This record gives sequence, structure tokens and C-alpha cells, in this order.
Amino acid sequence: MSGGQAAQRRSERLFLRSLTATDAAGDGAHTALAWVKACNEQVQARVERIAFKDMKLWRRDPDGDSIRHESGKFFSIEGIRVTTNWGRVPSWDQPIINQPEIGYLGFIAKEIDGVLHFLTQAKVEPGNVNHVQLSPTIQATRSNYTQVHAGKKPLYLEYFQKASAGNVLLDQLQSEQGARFRQKRNRNIIILADEDVPTYDNFKWLTLGQLKRLMRLDNVVNMDTRTVLSGISYGSYRDDALELHGALTSDRNGARAMGPFCRSALSLEHALHSIDELIHFLTELKSRYDLSLEKIPLGEARDWRSAPDEISRPDGKYFKVIAVDVAISSREVVTWHQPMIQPAQPGICAFVCKELNGVVHFAVQAKLECGNKDIIELAPTVQCLTGDYRAPDSEPVPFIDYVLKASADQVLLDVWQSEEGGRFFREQNRNMIVVAEDDFPRELPEKYIWMTLNQLLFFIKLNNYLNIQARSLLAAVALYEE
Amino acid sequence: MSGGQAAQRRSERLFLRSLTATDAAGDGAHTALAWVKACNEQVQARVERIAFKDMKLWRRDPDGDSIRHESGKFFSIEGIRVTTNWGRVPSWDQPIINQPEIGYLGFIAKEIDGVLHFLTQAKVEPGNVNHVQLSPTIQATRSNYTQVHAGKKPLYLEYFQKASAGNVLLDQLQSEQGARFRQKRNRNIIILADEDVPTYDNFKWLTLGQLKRLMRLDNVVNMDTRTVLSGISYGSYRDDALELHGALTSDRNGARAMGPFCRSALSLEHALHSIDELIHFLTELKSRYDLSLEKIPLGEARDWRSAPDEISRPDGKYFKVIAVDVAISSREVVTWHQPMIQPAQPGICAFVCKELNGVVHFAVQAKLECGNKDIIELAPTVQCLTGDYRAPDSEPVPFIDYVLKASADQVLLDVWQSEEGGRFFREQNRNMIVVAEDDFPRELPEKYIWMTLNQLLFFIKLNNYLNIQARSLLAAVALYEE
Repeated sequence: MSGGQAAQRRSERLFLRSLTATDAAGDGAHTALAWVKACNEQVQARVERIAFKDMKLWRRDPDGDSIRHESGKFFSIEGIRVTTNWGRVPSWDQPIINQPEIGYLGFIAKEIDGVLHFLTQAKVEPGNVNHVQLSPTIQATRSNYTQVHAGKKPLYLEYFQKASAGNVLLDQLQSEQGARFRQKRNRNIIILADEDVPTYDNFKWLTLGQLKRLMRLDNVVNMDTRTVLSGISYGSYRDDALELHGALTSDRNGARAMGPFCRSALSLEHALHSIDELIHFLTELKSRYDLSLEKIPLGEARDWRSAPDEISRPDGKYFKVIAVDVAISSREVVTWHQPMIQPAQPGICAFVCKELNGVVHFAVQAKLECGNKDIIELAPTVQCLTGDYRAPDSEPVPFIDYVLKASADQVLLDVWQSEEGGRFFREQNRNMIVVAEDDFPRELPEKYIWMTLNQLLFFIKLNNYLNIQARSLLAAVALYEE
Repeated sequence: MSGGQAAQRRSERLFLRSLTATDAAGDGAHTALAWVKACNEQVQARVERIAFKDMKLWRRDPDGDSIRHESGKFFSIEGIRVTTNWGRVPSWDQPIINQPEIGYLGFIAKEIDGVLHFLTQAKVEPGNVNHVQLSPTIQATRSNYTQVHAGKKPLYLEYFQKASAGNVLLDQLQSEQGARFRQKRNRNIIILADEDVPTYDNFKWLTLGQLKRLMRLDNVVNMDTRTVLSGISYGSYRDDALELHGALTSDRNGARAMGPFCRSALSLEHALHSIDELIHFLTELKSRYDLSLEKIPLGEARDWRSAPDEISRPDGKYFKVIAVDVAISSREVVTWHQPMIQPAQPGICAFVCKELNGVVHFAVQAKLECGNKDIIELAPTVQCLTGDYRAPDSEPVPFIDYVLKASADQVLLDVWQSEEGGRFFREQNRNMIVVAEDDFPRELPEKYIWMTLNQLLFFIKLNNYLNIQARSLLAAVALYEE
């Protein structure tokens, strides 16, 4: 084995150990939760809606009619006209966030007592329903760290700027919400520090197991943390090696059984479809469906209306663009204005899984969203974010009834999670993982396909294959029985 | 192993057998060559330059100022303004081909006497230097096969339209020339027929070994064939399995030695860098470099001048847009007009390889080209197509001297290959593969990285990782000693 391959194997082992190492009765997770609550009490966040024209440093630019920062940096909100042969609606207009810069969503990780810990930040975001959530060590756009607004340099930036093949554990480009962002991507990165790293106020070292446990609670772990951690792979093994591996992954307090999800994550074998078949599935859909976007003035977007303090649809659907005045006070008071997106209602994202061929498979949906960089991304079995799935006149959504009517012992995860609090105003969606019983069909509709966790983790490594909603759900999958 | 995985393993075996099966002294390749020559004698192709205004069905559309077909289909030639922080020139204008439809480049394959054969067409294209070259079974844009110009339905189309997971051997989206096309991609597909397939005039069944042998001759195998065949993988094995495999891949006339390129293609081990490191390399570059394109009227492109019969640069650099009147006569005469791209001079594409860690590695270049869908694609060690590398004032090109001065026993491949004759007017480029000696550095410059064939074949499967020039060269790599 070469140096590069040995390093990859070592990263996989580090991640697996960080996942399986138990602290007594999950105390670390409890402590972290108490710490988030304490941070929440120390901080005051005031977020008030204002009129667009009252925003400082932001304006609705008549040239092109978009909402943008005076520096031309950060992000803008533009109108687009979408044309596609996918779905029932061949063309529509909407506002969309354009943020072409690729920023960092990054963790510093470090071995503490032989177990990898992640430097986690308790971070306030203006859109969060509960102010403070657990975020990666750094969340920074290029405008942040090139200091367009002359703010302070983000903490820990220098660790990421000197990242190299020798200390990178994970480094992936990942997409964000395709219905809200125009082809936005972030650099999801985890670096391994072997020097001392200062732990500033509002930062704490947590294991992967602790972070995954906290993802089972409503709105504690933010979207950026979920996407970075979703990209972690634990290796791919043939059956004989995997049996051996079962022993290797026992934690300090005794061997823990390798559960069905662990086998689905680690096994190279038993997948219903080969990687080539999955690529065929995607190629076929990407060849058949077109997606084209044309930039239009916000004021010309059909079915949208501009008011002094919001851009919204008369039918109240989907979302609104609003402007907010933010004041965050902890030691000092920081204030700013910015536009945000406010959803019309909470949505739901759910994966249905089923044991097939001896290994857990996920029912994965190929989904076209207007801001996708490559037409289609792989999405959860159910993803209803842009419409009200409870409305009687809504388009039928495959499998939603199955998910909503699942019995308690089928539900592995049922939690409210927030979308990115820097752009989305109090948006939370229901996240579910449901285990199918025998009544669930093995044959899926045309745009759906069964994949093992190992296959999903293969595609996650490669940019623009899995959407943020799928990744967010996968991040919460615990490989071992609690 | 599941059904899907077994099918993938079977495809890999079929391809390997088709590569290694010898006919006596390569007779099949000689016969094919004689057949191409005979086809060339039977066909007359007249291609004459005309003024843009004289083109039938095509026009320079004043609305937006582009050259387009009256139907709005096929392709158009548009002006773009490119902005990037890559390289020395931060912004330039140029004409580019916009062809948003994804078409088929497809082979029907069939086992004949136990060996997979590919249904190959001797096809005339107006831009070919020598009229007839070997093309896939089908080359068809969606406008072709939805019959916008009321032409005949392409032969064999129905086989591809009914392709399904059960009979697809390969199905990939692949990019074309990033300096000439705006994000164009084709569906590269190989289907396995088990029924009788008629062999129409100008079609012939050839093995993979024969096709690869013909790629060592100037301008015989066209670009579309090369790109489809480049996507073929032969499986990934650990060392112990590979030793076993050495025996499995012997041909009927006796065992053939597994050469160093075969090990590089099949071995999962010994690569200098892990897949995660290669993804880190790409993520880092895609995060650092921006590429943005803005459509502009052709007449406003800086440094380009419109004449009645060409759009070109006063300095004669890069390429010209021209219009041609085509008449192809074999049994019947077919005539049409169309715009084409004529290059300023022949270019050169070369891979330098070197045995490192016991396995052949390729020096791969990350390259930004303006029409890339995702900023950067992996390119050959040397790729000079857009400028004259022999001009004394040209930008220095890393490794070009090494390639041009390589001794005869270092040169594995040195051949002229044509670019796509349907869009490019008599464009041929020198294709070389050079084996480095000890004097070649193991440390590569920043935008270059060593990869094994196995790793290159991993990334080829996934769309928009390897550019057409890299794929074209890899298609010619013979895995076994002749």
C-alpha cells in the first residue's frame, strides 16, 4: 500500500473510532447540550424586519434589478426564469440567491486521548429559531476572509489556509439548497491538527459519536455541521475483511455489535445495483431532462410581487424575500442589515430504508432543482420543501403517506432541523428516517433507486451528486446500536 | 455478490477479452484499414467555403448576434466574455459553440465467437482531412433523432432508445473541447445486443483490440470512437487477485504477458495518492479559481473581427469561424451548409508516464478551459491546442520540450488524430504518450498530479472529470505488449 492509500485508511479508522468511542452514558453529549443552553442564555439576538430601502450597505440595484451588497460581494438576490421539461410546470420565475464564491465549512479535528475530536462552535445566526446552534470550527465565505467589510478575520482561518494533502482528512465541494441557491457550493473540509490548538470562548471539542447523538435533538446541530460530517467515509470492505473489522471497531468499554447500518456503510458487496448501474441511472436522466436558467429583473418575475418590505407571491406559496435588522449581543453588540429568505411553511425530508439482499438500502430520489449545477442531484425518498404537502390541492408526493403513517418502531429518526441561519429566516424542516416493512415495494418508480450507505458515501465524495437534504439526513445515521 | 455487481464484473471481463483476443497477426485491423480505404474511394466529399449570408437554413441572427439554425436547434455560435483568475489573462472574448442538447455517441456490441465486437461505422464528416474515419454505431444529437430537418432517422437509433440497465455495458456523460464548446456533453454509451443485429453498408464488427491497434495510425479512428472507448474499465483488483487474473486474461493463442500498463489499469494498490487526496487536489483548485461566462453579441467580441466569410482575429491566433457548402456523394448526393471552426494550426497533446511505486503513473494536469462545466478538468501533461507552441513569443508550456525531445524508445504513441469532423474543419493534433526516464522529476508543479490508469478510469466514469484530450489519449493505451 502506498503512503496516500495508507493515510486514507488511517483517516477512516480515526473517524470510525471517533464514532464508536463511548463516554460514560453519552455524558459528552449531555455536557455539550448544557453548554449550548448556557451560551443561549448569555446571548441576546434581536432580528427585526425592515424595509428594503432602509438596509445599510445593501440595496435594490436598478441596474439588472437585484438586491446586492454595495461591495458587489457576499451574495445577491436575483430573478431567474427557469425552463425545463421535468415535472408538470415547464417554466416559472422566482427569486434566487446568487453566491458564486466558494467558502469554507471546516472543522479542525485533533486526537485527544486517542480519540478524534472536532472543534465545534456554539454560533448565533440571525435566522436560527433558537439563536445558538453547533457549527463547524469555521464558516466563512471568501468575502468574509478577504475582509470586504473590514470585520475581524475569522478565528482559526490560518489553519485552513495552510491545509495540505498531509493534514486533510476530508475536502469536498458540496452543493446547497437547489431551490434557493443558484449553483452555490461550499468547501467542506476537515483538517487534522497535531499541534496545540487554542480553544476560544464558545468552542468545544466533541467526538463524532457525540455530534451524531446531538443530531437526534431538534435544532441543536446546524446545517453546516451536518453537511461536513455527512461526507465522512469509514472505508469499503469485502465480507471477509468486514468480519475481521467487527472486532477492530469495538470501543473501549467492550465490543459493540455492528448494526445493519454499519454493514450498509462498510460493505462493498450485496448492493442491489453496481456503481456502473447507478451511473447509468443518472446519465439516462441527465440526458433526458433539460434545465435552463435565464437571469431576469426581480420586478419582472411572473407571479411574484414586490412590496417595500418583501418580495412574495400573492398566493403565499414557497417563500418570501425579506430584509432584517440584526443585533447580536454577548460581550459586545454587533449589528447589521441583510436580506433573508423566509419559507412559507415547514417542510419534510425523509429517507425510507429497507434491508435487501442482506444489506440496508436507501430509496434515493433523483431530483431536479432549479439551482442545481448539473440538472439532477440525489435526494431523500421524500423531499417537500417548496410546497405545502398537507394542502389538499398539492401535487401527489410519492411515499409521503408511508412516511407520515409509519409506526413508532419503524421510525429511526424524527427531528426538526434548521436550514442555514445566515440566509434562511427561522426555517426548520422535519427530518425522518423510516425503516420499511414488507409492505413497501421493492420495485421503485422511475426516478428512484435503491442504494447502500457505502454507495451513497462513494457519491458524496464527488461534488454535486447528493443534495444537501440527503446529506443532512445521512449525517444523522448512527452506525451502531445505542 | 448481487446481480448488479455480477453484471458489472461480467462487462469488465467481456471488455478485457475483446482487448486481448488476437486474430492472427492483427488481420482484423488490416482488413478494417483496407475497408476504410475502399470506403474512401467510393465516396466523394466536396467542402467549399462560402459567405455566412449564403448559408441555407443558417443565419447570423441580429437578435443577440449569433449564428444559428433557423429551427433554433442543432447548435449556435455565440460570443462570450470570459472572466477568470486562472492564468495570465483575466478576461477575454471569443466565439464559442453552444450545443445544449445531449446526443448519443453509441456502440452496439455483440459477442461473436465468444469475443465482444463493436459495430463500427465508416463515416464521412465534412471536416475530416481524409473524409472517412471509423465512428461509433451512432452519432446523433437530439435534433438529429427528433428529425428537426426532416432527414432520415439515424440507423440503429431504436437499439439505444430501448437501452436499459439490463443491456447497458457503459453509459457516461462526457465533455467535449472546453475551449470550443460551451459546456457541451454527449452520452457515451455501449449496449450489448444478444439478438441478431443487421450489418448495414459501411458498418463492420471490430474487437476492442483491433480498434486500439487502428488508433496507432493517423486519422483512422474518429474522436467520437476514442471518447466512448476511453470510458471502458476492466475492473479493480488487489494484488493477490491480480496475480490470479494474469492467467485469466490470456488469449486463445497462448498467454500474453500482463504489461506495466495492464497492472496500472487493474491494480487498486500502489497508487502514489489515494482517491481522497486526488479529490482534495481538485477541491482546492476549484475553490481557488473562478470562471464566469457572459454571453455577448459576436460583433462585440474584443480582438475578433467579422468579415463576410469568416470571424477571426487580426493576429491570426486560435481559430476562425467559417461557413461551408458540403456535398457528400456515395450512392446518392447529400448537400448542406453549416458553420465550422477552423484552427489556426495543429496542436499537440501528450501524456508523460513514469513507473512509480511499482506501477505506471500518468502526469495529469488540472486545466481550466472556458467552456468547462465545472471550472477544471483533468488534462494530459501537455495540451497545446489554442496557441502555437512553436512560436518564440508563446507562453512557456511545462514539459513540452521533454515530450518533443523524447528518444524513440521512450515514445509509446505518436500519431495524428482528428477532432470531431462535424464541427471542426480539418483539425488534427499530434497525440503522444512518452515514458519518462529517471531525469523526469517525481515532484510535479502545483497544478499537476500523478495518477494510475485505474484512478483515471475511476474518474472517467463520473461526468466532467477528464477532458476529451485526456480521454482520447487514454483510449489508445494498449494494456498488453504487442
